[in-house]
Amino acid sequence: MSADSYMDMALEEARAAARRGEVPVGAVLVDADSGEVLARAGNLTEEMNDPTAHAEILVIRAAAGAKGEPRLPNCDLYVTLEPCPMCATAISFARLRRVYFGAYDPKGGGVDHGPRVFESTSCHHRPEVYGGIGEVEATKLLKDFFGSLR
Amino acid sequence: MSADSYMDMALEEARAAARRGEVPVGAVLVDADSGEVLARAGNLTEEMNDPTAHAEILVIRAAAGAKGEPRLPNCDLYVTLEPCPMCATAISFARLRRVYFGAYDPKGGGVDHGPRVFESTSCHHRPEVYGGIGEVEATKLLKDFFGSLR
Repeated sequence: MSADSYMDMALEEARAAARRGEVPVGAVLVDADSGEVLARAGNLTEEMNDPTAHAEILVIRAAAGAKGEPRLPNCDLYVTLEPCPMCATAISFARLRRVYFGAYDPKGGGVDHGPRVFESTSCHHRPEVYGGIGEVEATKLLKDFFGSLR
Repeated sequence: MSADSYMDMALEEARAAARRGEVPVGAVLVDADSGEVLARAGNLTEEMNDPTAHAEILVIRAAAGAKGEPRLPNCDLYVTLEPCPMCATAISFARLRRVYFGAYDPKGGGVDHGPRVFESTSCHHRPEVYGGIGEVEATKLLKDFFGSLR
């Protein structure tokens, strides 16, 4: 499967999150060698009453738990929105190889905005990062969601 | 109970974490009105195979789950080490009122070091922060732990 196909899968998760009343962000974690999808999830902070239940955290926890290993060095993350500083740090701790993200997030992002976690001296593993993959659709989902709340 | 007593409880959790072979960090989450301890935990990243299972994340998740509410606005966190950027961001998302921490962490901290999450433009809730509470004991635990690994 191509990067676009994995991002399509993440966008499906984002749409499902919107239907549940969650901020529409979706993520897919992929084994870079086999191409296998290890985990996929959308945001669940409201449903789980868990402020840490962002899509990225959920797929990292699920894949690490399934592998029985707290680090996932040869795995790539596809996520529809620029990770926040919490998720960016978790990505670093999990030693992910690459991060592909959709929409840029000037207000809440922690990769290309805000604290720019991967550029910090206290970041000990920096993944390769590719932003703007599937950006148009990811941004539309978020705009529709926040527009409908007003 | 006083701040020192809650920090003693967090230090107990840190010692228990060390005995399990985890980085010795402990945390206690307290309801600021009643003084009730809502959750207490030590790091569990290795045992749970979960890179996000820092003591702070564990107590936030436990307390939010128990309250059935993803935000904990009138709660205070006691943690033996300066929170990393992941935990600092989770603390902000959870809307915690205050953070009391023990040892400063120049290498991995995200509050007074590294990305200084609470000072970032993308941080929308900043708790009051008090560092260096119980610092001597918290630092000794960490030094003994990392010393024993060499």
